[in-house]
Amino acid sequence: MTQHSIEHASFTIERTYSAPPPRVFAAWADPAAKRRWFVEDLTWKTLDYEFDFRVGGREHGRFQGEDGPVFINDTVYLDIVPDRRIAFAYSMSTDDGPFSASLVTVDFQPKGQGTKLVFTEQGAFFDGFDQPTMRQTGWGWLFDALDRALGETRD
Amino acid sequence: MTQHSIEHASFTIERTYSAPPPRVFAAWADPAAKRRWFVEDLTWKTLDYEFDFRVGGREHGRFQGEDGPVFINDTVYLDIVPDRRIAFAYSMSTDDGPFSASLVTVDFQPKGQGTKLVFTEQGAFFDGFDQPTMRQTGWGWLFDALDRALGETRD
Repeated sequence: MTQHSIEHASFTIERTYSAPPPRVFAAWADPAAKRRWFVEDLTWKTLDYEFDFRVGGREHGRFQGEDGPVFINDTVYLDIVPDRRIAFAYSMSTDDGPFSASLVTVDFQPKGQGTKLVFTEQGAFFDGFDQPTMRQTGWGWLFDALDRALGETRD
Repeated sequence: MTQHSIEHASFTIERTYSAPPPRVFAAWADPAAKRRWFVEDLTWKTLDYEFDFRVGGREHGRFQGEDGPVFINDTVYLDIVPDRRIAFAYSMSTDDGPFSASLVTVDFQPKGQGTKLVFTEQGAFFDGFDQPTMRQTGWGWLFDALDRALGETRD
């Protein structure tokens, strides 16, 4: 019998960019700009990827590490305030089904000429398959890629 | 200029039912059973209501209090484990757009011959329009209606 469990956890990632909010927001909203850091900068193989950035729109991707399992990302956008806020929910799955469900808010705050970005994930992790610390690490890699896309390497 | 803010909060509601998990789960999964407590037991006027209970399926309702504003509920189901777990995300909106986005897990745990239900909402509340305590109160009314639907009034 499968062991059923739900672990709830939340974490926040903050970054400050010299680019103004419209440019940072565009990195999450424009299909080519989003693809650049969210899909193409990583070493994972992309099996498919679709992105429909509007309230109620879906984002779907299937990604595979080297000889590893296929991970499926299904996102739905819940709220969009241009240059200011994005809220979305997403699940991560294997072929066996979802192993997590999350709510994310991305808050783009003007800071001088630049932007303070506050990313908050509230997640539910199922049956011990994944852990919040691993998820935060994964988003850390994505934010490193976003930094590079915005010309702000921190290495 | 609109004041932008995001308040993150979570809360849990627990109930114990003498009905076994399949019957309690059905109250969330079966269209007629869900409608009975989620829509028809309340004093709000239902302007429209649709329910498609499957992973990726949507639930949509527009509700109006007496001479009050119209509130719009948009839900998407992220994970379903029959008789055991449901995860969904939802937004609440007025005609001006969403004022909250939430992730909910409903955990149906066998307890003797009955069921322990653990409902957890992780929410983001926008621009000070709504508050987590009000949301928890609203779900409390819905759970009272669910109790009645399952024949377990606690009044």
